[in-house]
Amino acid sequence: MERGDDRLKIKLQLCCGDEIAMGPGKAELLEAIGREGSISAAGRALGMSYRRAWLLVDAMNRCWDQPLVETAPGGKHGGGARVSQLGQSVLAQYRALQADVWVASQGEPLAALGAALRKAPRGSQNES
Amino acid sequence: MERGDDRLKIKLQLCCGDEIAMGPGKAELLEAIGREGSISAAGRALGMSYRRAWLLVDAMNRCWDQPLVETAPGGKHGGGARVSQLGQSVLAQYRALQADVWVASQGEPLAALGAALRKAPRGSQNES
Repeated sequence: MERGDDRLKIKLQLCCGDEIAMGPGKAELLEAIGREGSISAAGRALGMSYRRAWLLVDAMNRCWDQPLVETAPGGKHGGGARVSQLGQSVLAQYRALQADVWVASQGEPLAALGAALRKAPRGSQNES
Repeated sequence: MERGDDRLKIKLQLCCGDEIAMGPGKAELLEAIGREGSISAAGRALGMSYRRAWLLVDAMNRCWDQPLVETAPGGKHGGGARVSQLGQSVLAQYRALQADVWVASQGEPLAALGAALRKAPRGSQNES
């Protein structure tokens, strides 16, 4: 995930071998496919090329027991796409994991770090 | 942080304006400076160019109330460097934050995700 009070960013990735099975970008794409009903429209909505969206879907579909995105017959470009039942479940669990982690981050260590962190960085020294 | 049971990676970044004040790479560099006693030796130990190590130290030093790394007189290349008291404290709190978050990640959502995640990805379809 990437989530912030400005100051803390937390990124969660689930890996399957060398592939990233789920992460902030894939979760966002999955949600967009659910809304838009096609990979190309979802990609467009996120400012992502069709090729990039397709590659993310392909990676997701290869990493889980069942595909997370089901494409309708009619060709990859022409047909629609939907989030499978497993896809909906994976998305919900990923969001729940993000929430658990976020709650746990809001404790003493973050308060101590926040107290010493400047609002804005000082100007850079010249390196030379 | 980046930490894993292979499958979950969690990356924590603390931001100060547009700069990253602390993250996995900076924490590792800080620890290496503590061990090695100089920025250049620490960079070498991590396979990082001197310039890159210096830029990370510069960013860290500009983001907190006090510098995290103190350089000894004698020139940036020649002199030694040490982790300041604040640097040691920030590092300890960052590691504590990582630990809290890691513990919180090991719950039901991760178990559910892990149950549906393949050990290795299926082979890729051909895109064309």
